[in-house]
Amino acid sequence: MATDQTQMQRPRYMGVPTFFRAPAAATAAGVDIAVIGIPFDGGVTNRSGARHGPRELRNQSSLMRTIHPVTRRNPFDDCRVADLGDVDFSRPHDILSCCDEIERAIGAVEQQGARPLVAGGDHTISYPILKALARSQPLGLIHIDAHTDTWDSFAGNKLMHGTPFRRAVEAGAIDPKRTIQIGIRGAQISTEGWDYSRDSGMRVMFMDEVVETGIANTIAEARRVAGAGPVYLSFDIDSLDPVYAPGTGTPEAGGFTAREAIQLLRGLDGLAFAGADVVEVSPPHDVNGLTALHGATVMYEALCLLAADFKA
Amino acid sequence: MATDQTQMQRPRYMGVPTFFRAPAAATAAGVDIAVIGIPFDGGVTNRSGARHGPRELRNQSSLMRTIHPVTRRNPFDDCRVADLGDVDFSRPHDILSCCDEIERAIGAVEQQGARPLVAGGDHTISYPILKALARSQPLGLIHIDAHTDTWDSFAGNKLMHGTPFRRAVEAGAIDPKRTIQIGIRGAQISTEGWDYSRDSGMRVMFMDEVVETGIANTIAEARRVAGAGPVYLSFDIDSLDPVYAPGTGTPEAGGFTAREAIQLLRGLDGLAFAGADVVEVSPPHDVNGLTALHGATVMYEALCLLAADFKA
Amino acid sequence: MATDQTQMQRPRYMGVPTFFRAPAAATAAGVDIAVIGIPFDGGVTNRSGARHGPRELRNQSSLMRTIHPVTRRNPFDDCRVADLGDVDFSRPHDILSCCDEIERAIGAVEQQGARPLVAGGDHTISYPILKALARSQPLGLIHIDAHTDTWDSFAGNKLMHGTPFRRAVEAGAIDPKRTIQIGIRGAQISTEGWDYSRDSGMRVMFMDEVVETGIANTIAEARRVAGAGPVYLSFDIDSLDPVYAPGTGTPEAGGFTAREAIQLLRGLDGLAFAGADVVEVSPPHDVNGLTALHGATVMYEALCLLAADFKA
Amino acid sequence: MATDQTQMQRPRYMGVPTFFRAPAAATAAGVDIAVIGIPFDGGVTNRSGARHGPRELRNQSSLMRTIHPVTRRNPFDDCRVADLGDVDFSRPHDILSCCDEIERAIGAVEQQGARPLVAGGDHTISYPILKALARSQPLGLIHIDAHTDTWDSFAGNKLMHGTPFRRAVEAGAIDPKRTIQIGIRGAQISTEGWDYSRDSGMRVMFMDEVVETGIANTIAEARRVAGAGPVYLSFDIDSLDPVYAPGTGTPEAGGFTAREAIQLLRGLDGLAFAGADVVEVSPPHDVNGLTALHGATVMYEALCLLAADFKA
Amino acid sequence: MATDQTQMQRPRYMGVPTFFRAPAAATAAGVDIAVIGIPFDGGVTNRSGARHGPRELRNQSSLMRTIHPVTRRNPFDDCRVADLGDVDFSRPHDILSCCDEIERAIGAVEQQGARPLVAGGDHTISYPILKALARSQPLGLIHIDAHTDTWDSFAGNKLMHGTPFRRAVEAGAIDPKRTIQIGIRGAQISTEGWDYSRDSGMRVMFMDEVVETGIANTIAEARRVAGAGPVYLSFDIDSLDPVYAPGTGTPEAGGFTAREAIQLLRGLDGLAFAGADVVEVSPPHDVNGLTALHGATVMYEALCLLAADFKA
Amino acid sequence: MATDQTQMQRPRYMGVPTFFRAPAAATAAGVDIAVIGIPFDGGVTNRSGARHGPRELRNQSSLMRTIHPVTRRNPFDDCRVADLGDVDFSRPHDILSCCDEIERAIGAVEQQGARPLVAGGDHTISYPILKALARSQPLGLIHIDAHTDTWDSFAGNKLMHGTPFRRAVEAGAIDPKRTIQIGIRGAQISTEGWDYSRDSGMRVMFMDEVVETGIANTIAEARRVAGAGPVYLSFDIDSLDPVYAPGTGTPEAGGFTAREAIQLLRGLDGLAFAGADVVEVSPPHDVNGLTALHGATVMYEALCLLAADFKA
Repeated sequence: MATDQTQMQRPRYMGVPTFFRAPAAATAAGVDIAVIGIPFDGGVTNRSGARHGPRELRNQSSLMRTIHPVTRRNPFDDCRVADLGDVDFSRPHDILSCCDEIERAIGAVEQQGARPLVAGGDHTISYPILKALARSQPLGLIHIDAHTDTWDSFAGNKLMHGTPFRRAVEAGAIDPKRTIQIGIRGAQISTEGWDYSRDSGMRVMFMDEVVETGIANTIAEARRVAGAGPVYLSFDIDSLDPVYAPGTGTPEAGGFTAREAIQLLRGLDGLAFAGADVVEVSPPHDVNGLTALHGATVMYEALCLLAADFKA
Repeated sequence: MATDQTQMQRPRYMGVPTFFRAPAAATAAGVDIAVIGIPFDGGVTNRSGARHGPRELRNQSSLMRTIHPVTRRNPFDDCRVADLGDVDFSRPHDILSCCDEIERAIGAVEQQGARPLVAGGDHTISYPILKALARSQPLGLIHIDAHTDTWDSFAGNKLMHGTPFRRAVEAGAIDPKRTIQIGIRGAQISTEGWDYSRDSGMRVMFMDEVVETGIANTIAEARRVAGAGPVYLSFDIDSLDPVYAPGTGTPEAGGFTAREAIQLLRGLDGLAFAGADVVEVSPPHDVNGLTALHGATVMYEALCLLAADFKA
Repeated sequence: MATDQTQMQRPRYMGVPTFFRAPAAATAAGVDIAVIGIPFDGGVTNRSGARHGPRELRNQSSLMRTIHPVTRRNPFDDCRVADLGDVDFSRPHDILSCCDEIERAIGAVEQQGARPLVAGGDHTISYPILKALARSQPLGLIHIDAHTDTWDSFAGNKLMHGTPFRRAVEAGAIDPKRTIQIGIRGAQISTEGWDYSRDSGMRVMFMDEVVETGIANTIAEARRVAGAGPVYLSFDIDSLDPVYAPGTGTPEAGGFTAREAIQLLRGLDGLAFAGADVVEVSPPHDVNGLTALHGATVMYEALCLLAADFKA
Repeated sequence: MATDQTQMQRPRYMGVPTFFRAPAAATAAGVDIAVIGIPFDGGVTNRSGARHGPRELRNQSSLMRTIHPVTRRNPFDDCRVADLGDVDFSRPHDILSCCDEIERAIGAVEQQGARPLVAGGDHTISYPILKALARSQPLGLIHIDAHTDTWDSFAGNKLMHGTPFRRAVEAGAIDPKRTIQIGIRGAQISTEGWDYSRDSGMRVMFMDEVVETGIANTIAEARRVAGAGPVYLSFDIDSLDPVYAPGTGTPEAGGFTAREAIQLLRGLDGLAFAGADVVEVSPPHDVNGLTALHGATVMYEALCLLAADFKA
Repeated sequence: MATDQTQMQRPRYMGVPTFFRAPAAATAAGVDIAVIGIPFDGGVTNRSGARHGPRELRNQSSLMRTIHPVTRRNPFDDCRVADLGDVDFSRPHDILSCCDEIERAIGAVEQQGARPLVAGGDHTISYPILKALARSQPLGLIHIDAHTDTWDSFAGNKLMHGTPFRRAVEAGAIDPKRTIQIGIRGAQISTEGWDYSRDSGMRVMFMDEVVETGIANTIAEARRVAGAGPVYLSFDIDSLDPVYAPGTGTPEAGGFTAREAIQLLRGLDGLAFAGADVVEVSPPHDVNGLTALHGATVMYEALCLLAADFKA
Repeated sequence: MATDQTQMQRPRYMGVPTFFRAPAAATAAGVDIAVIGIPFDGGVTNRSGARHGPRELRNQSSLMRTIHPVTRRNPFDDCRVADLGDVDFSRPHDILSCCDEIERAIGAVEQQGARPLVAGGDHTISYPILKALARSQPLGLIHIDAHTDTWDSFAGNKLMHGTPFRRAVEAGAIDPKRTIQIGIRGAQISTEGWDYSRDSGMRVMFMDEVVETGIANTIAEARRVAGAGPVYLSFDIDSLDPVYAPGTGTPEAGGFTAREAIQLLRGLDGLAFAGADVVEVSPPHDVNGLTALHGATVMYEALCLLAADFKA
């Protein structure tokens, strides 16, 4: 039960760039962890470009290697990892149609027994992913982001990148009591999102609290909230400080350093992750690939989390 | 009948950047030429970012000055020029709603007796602009572009940036016999657009013909086709070669140099322009403001064309 | 007593970019906080470009929103904020003449009862601003910077960006006993500036001390030094680490992170701020707008400090 | 006999980027035109980076479409095109070993009956490619470049990017009488390369002559020299002017515009091309992908030349 | 009588970058052509940064080689070329003082019998250079630029980058009848400069005329105007089209291509050049070194012009 | 015993850029600290470009000043510092030959009694430097890096940038018991390097340990391991976080901030440094000079360490 790592041994600039230079696969059959791109950014309100995220995350993921420096585990040895390509859209300008197609595509992966690791795309996509994964029960959620993304709507639009987790609560796809939002910061034009998250029972750790309490305590709190049940990881790249992630639609000063984010993710080892996404990487706004490099690094750590219970 | 040019005399980096550093105005009342931004890019099929076009065109237009080096006319002396701000959208994710609001906004300008000079935005916007301006009769069209933008639809979408001129013909907003498309080039995945343009009676000058015949003959042909009636100028920045306009959604190698484009535009002096647009400037894909600089230069030349019959 | 926030609700890329997308105003009449640009960089000794600072700070300030995430106050509700445009210069190449015009412009704002929030420009401008604001008594000063800016002169020049606070002491515009300089670091070719600051009675916190003592203690020390009287905030963007502020004239490795700077500024809440500036943002040396984004973020925090005692 | 064009119809930012988004293939069996990357830049003397050329040429080739605007032919209909991935190197630091592996890889393609279209890599690679293709007879050569690449050696090195065509003459892989070098320009530290080309019987058209005589006459001369036999096309991206190809190792001011290069290539239609390469695209030195965009455009035109005699 | 070319044979990235990697020299004694930097940009009205011009021109000049591709002459064989470093300023903020120091420095070079080849700096510097070189008689002038630089003053300032040639006429340093200005274009806020050039007797070739008449006729006209006497070459990099020279203070669309500029300069071979400058290269506004590359290329061609009558 | 600091007092953009604007010297005679460039990057496995490192480090080192802000010492007063130029290569494509020439060049410096401060170049160069410096006894080593660089070989290559310290142990040039490697992090495709470092007796502080224990304890550990004997400092710029050093070949997320690195280096004051290098600065991959700025800052701190025992 291992990935063919031949092409991952070559110099990093060689070959067609799949995610992690893992083998390409048409379906999730025989795959343990399915890495998938969702090049959709029709739900943003300011700067777009996340449609180009999967392409650049694939490109920068060539810099990732295999054996984890802390756990010394190799997720590509422990399970079968494949690049399933991008979700296809028949009507790319139609948000509802795109969300349906995302839900179907992720549902197919889930039914074939693979765990999805998704490269967005804007944050809208987390809602149909969660619907696809939560068919039997609501999931816990560890949501790392500068924003709560729990608005009700924007300009008459219920499905967009500021609303996925409110929609997911309404659809029973996540359990707000097992949901933690980490890294929230920045001014808002209304307190609506902050209020909904609190009132629905989510645990919201603003960046101020994270800084004061430290990463170790943040990890403990995340583990406490998520508990033992199945949990989903959603990582908005704008949770990182803008110097680590300039290529995103709504940068907020004062975010996580890469080091803190990596430490935080490593602390989640052993939770029962059903899937994960990394969203809002917008290459047209990036600087020399730094945002995509950090996005790919987060994807590698997420891959290790998803692979943790596969080891022999 | 002149623009207040006080702020246009200051060093170019000073002050809030309106278009050409002209006065701002809330409506077109008392205005001869209304410069308007339309920050919409919901109709693109590849790289977006033209929503940021008006902002950067305003920024770079600070480099424009007043007295034309060939005609020695000063359009700001000859008529009243104002920046009317951007068209507002109540539902920015809804293409149809946006097109309606564009049509209403431009219609209001036209009814107040001003000529619109529009900074896009993607090419979708030319269709509602043309509908607003052509209420009494179809307009002639001088369309400078790498693409004919006369597809029927894209992925089930009738209103997008590849279809505006087909829609405009169908709506009677332009007269295909008085329409010329200049600079068409690049491969296509279907001949549909090329075919429609030809079959509907438009004159299509592919880039090859332009290069062979020269700019002077191209001007003559454009004047012949457009004739004496009211005519609209639509300038897609991707008509320029990608080194002059890297910041656009669908660059095509081998386009116009800025010098050729300026020469071409100057050759259209004296035609009865009812309005003009410069579209597809996408700042996130730009290099050091070059695309916006060239867009602003084209806007200045278009302004002079619109102002030509105002001189005392 | 509130700002019209209509245009601040629109998508951030729309409209003519005033500071914070606040209303423009010709004078400070009826204004509580006057945001003003001073596009002057004639006082630098190395890399220039801060003349373009106000333009880009306006541009990036569109990303700022209204309600503060910690205080939950909205400064635009609490008081009337307006963009007063840029200070005009009749002789932009003449440092003395420019300083006179700055002093007059800020003096007019002060006499109309508004507090100035200034976007520079190089640090030379703080001297005429302080002279304008300190007519009745010397001000306290919280000065966040990599350099003390207390040299005597540079190449025979008494007014330049390395001397404003020495000049301000000499003019009685600031009280050195109520002055604190925070974040000083980097090698020098002479100890003159360090020596003057110490000898005149200023409290100088080198970066080493800040790192060792922590931000909370730095805040306490700043509050102790500034005391209860009127105080001015001068924030040189090169106090930030070069990865947060590459676009500046004299970057020094090892500065504040944005998170630390925000924490520091928030800790000053409740002091009696008479005005504030953010200087040395040099867009030609910037990377993808990061420096201006951080400058605009600092301006937002400074705005909240200036607005603190306006709340009903 | 056609390529599966399904994925070429999708929005251009979607999916794993193979060359032209054509199908990937492990070998040339059943393939008419094999597009291959050779990520080698060990032969340069100044700026390296061409090892990253295949990756970025694949990326930008997503912008290429199918039906040629002049011939209206679709090379993907006319023949089977596939991406064969990159040539693998067992000892990437060893020039001789790499050249051997290139020769073997291209030889295998040729023996399976496919024509290679190669994306470099630095110009060193043309020598082993030519050796692989010229086993039965020397080839004619159309070589478009700023430099003759006919030095004897550099710092004791016989195989590097300034020597491939001298080596190819010596090996009998090209016929100097059927060789034309077009676009040569720029100063040199020795006349050795210019002299060898002339003395060996090659036709050298310096850029000055090309400008004076025009592209049409240049085409005629190239066709005359190449004649009816099998011919190879080698296109060094530095033949383009540095504004079209900033991303290359040894830029020389005053080169071809993209429009001229396209016109020149189209004029070679109908010659018996046995293979082609596009070399010296160095992405680390590129500006916003322009060099790779032009490289991909040249590759598309070269593909059409290779496909010309496949049409039914 | 030749330059030591040892270090010019090394790979171009090696060593401390003097101009052309020529030997450094403290004075012009024993030097035929003295290459000098003048890092002054205190005379600009918009974007500054030309103070960094000499540094980057030195850097990019490493790409220049020795033997001219048309004349086959090697100027470094024909005469002694040295880098004399930069002109020093005792009061860099004082325009008059700087102009005096420039005049003295260039005067010293001239008195030692060397010809200066100057890398600016903004165009202000041409005035003191011309005063230094024209002590015995007024010089002819070939001035290649987008602007005439013959304003009377700017904001009360007589010495700035828009006035040098008016000052030079007034000082008797140039003969307006032997002066030609080539490439003038772009709108102006007053016709004053155009008028002065014409009225003083200069020959002004607007870009329109250059395009219409062609480069060969432009050369002929320049040779006719300049005549047989001593002549100075002043090349403003903004004469080039902005895609060739984005890094400059006042870019104007529609300028010379590098190829045209090179052709034009080569056509001036044999005139009696007393000195030359290349000005207005502003690296902070450059794109990947392109402007400096073209500036260095122009400097190489100018060097060849200055060296022409040194050959044995 | 002091450096001539005349040119170091001028504005930073002036003059030919030697390291720190120190005097140039042909040999180390009479020099205490010899600053030397080694423009070699033939040993990398992924992104190259470090051959351009010395050039850009010289350029950015102009921003460095003289008097240290903590120690108040001026190393240029305390000893004679000179720029010795770059090591020359007779066969730049031949790794062994280059390593020999490096060893000879550094050996000559050492024999003249100067301490070398080297600007790379890729990490391969540390091996021949260490061999040159360790002729009488093995050196201690403080190695700050993301990678241990103790592989055995890469693709059959024993001398490349992943092996220098294994080679140095084998050659007796360093004492593994007196070697500490600090900042190691990132995944690997094999544990070989980690294992060799541990098994040979080196002290390896992974980044995780550094973060947990803090910089002060890291300093203590480094001092303990290095002891009182002669020690070499090797600083790989990729030890810094990629936002501080994007311009390097193998960036690893989660590294040192510049502030931490400076603190760490300052903590080594008083050790018996025999030499130092800063390697892997790759300007083609840099962002606006940030990597080179940080590299130059590290070089200044290293210079102060080398100069520490020279003070009177």
